[in-house]
Amino acid sequence: MARWEPNARGRLEQAALDLFSERGFEQTTTAQIAERAGLTERTFFRHYADKREVLFGGSRALEEVFVDTLGGTPETAAPIDAMASTLETVAAFFAERHEFARRRQAVIMANAELRERELIKLSSLSAALAATLRRRGVKDPAASLTAEAGIAVFKVGFERWVGENGERGLADFLRESLDELKVVAAGA
Amino acid sequence: MARWEPNARGRLEQAALDLFSERGFEQTTTAQIAERAGLTERTFFRHYADKREVLFGGSRALEEVFVDTLGGTPETAAPIDAMASTLETVAAFFAERHEFARRRQAVIMANAELRERELIKLSSLSAALAATLRRRGVKDPAASLTAEAGIAVFKVGFERWVGENGERGLADFLRESLDELKVVAAGA
Repeated sequence: MARWEPNARGRLEQAALDLFSERGFEQTTTAQIAERAGLTERTFFRHYADKREVLFGGSRALEEVFVDTLGGTPETAAPIDAMASTLETVAAFFAERHEFARRRQAVIMANAELRERELIKLSSLSAALAATLRRRGVKDPAASLTAEAGIAVFKVGFERWVGENGERGLADFLRESLDELKVVAAGA
Repeated sequence: MARWEPNARGRLEQAALDLFSERGFEQTTTAQIAERAGLTERTFFRHYADKREVLFGGSRALEEVFVDTLGGTPETAAPIDAMASTLETVAAFFAERHEFARRRQAVIMANAELRERELIKLSSLSAALAATLRRRGVKDPAASLTAEAGIAVFKVGFERWVGENGERGLADFLRESLDELKVVAAGA
């Protein structure tokens, strides 16, 4: 019978990021991650399908937060305002996660396969947001462009947030990036 | 000595797209492409490193057109206006290429590996455009956001263009998408 391990997921995440940062993603095995976390490899596989999942385990939850929040905004709101309030909610998802996000980003940027996977997740997220906007009655190309704009703001704001020390929250960076996109689009 | 084959590249492209569309990308070999084109496999490899390159052979040239054009816009132009005139020039790159682009898009959308490669090319293009804007004195996050906006407009406009019959040129679709992005960003 499986023993209950307090905060096994968090310990595995921490151990995985430590090892990925020290030796590189390719050179790290699931057995080493489990050992560093003081857990068995069996426990590792109860929580993650493979070592890549430690980095992407949150992607589905993130897409759900994005889609559910956007889908729940009032249909009377302009699409870009619906996206703005969605980004505020999404930012809360990353509260207390700055250090994890910063280290995860460094591991991903160092590995072509992981960068590809991150791009695919963002592309699938953009498609899900466009579909959600269409369901709310937004026509194309406005739906696709609002979704792409939201992802661009998220990407740029997120990268700036992980590049800083974490004192200012992600919401600030996302708001700033959206404001800047509006300024850019207005031709200033 | 290599025999000169009139329009070998064009014939190989056409044959490759025909076969990819008929049998799928995975099921097609370079030998089959060469045979269908009435050329030898050796001739194929004089023009393309592998069968994937028939689809992505134009990516480097496209990035060059994007970067050279954006880099040559007057520094007094607002970044989004520099991007708008860059998109006009890029559209000319695709004149007479609607049928090829339409069929290429269908092949790429049907294959996960090819979709990934396309995303990576667009992401690298976005990074190159942001770097070009920074050299022109545009600060961040404006440089990154203008680049991402340009890519979003290109992607959405391009998809709409290949989805239609080719009577209207790509420039029209890119202009419309950029105008729509401006409307979206302004909160309409």
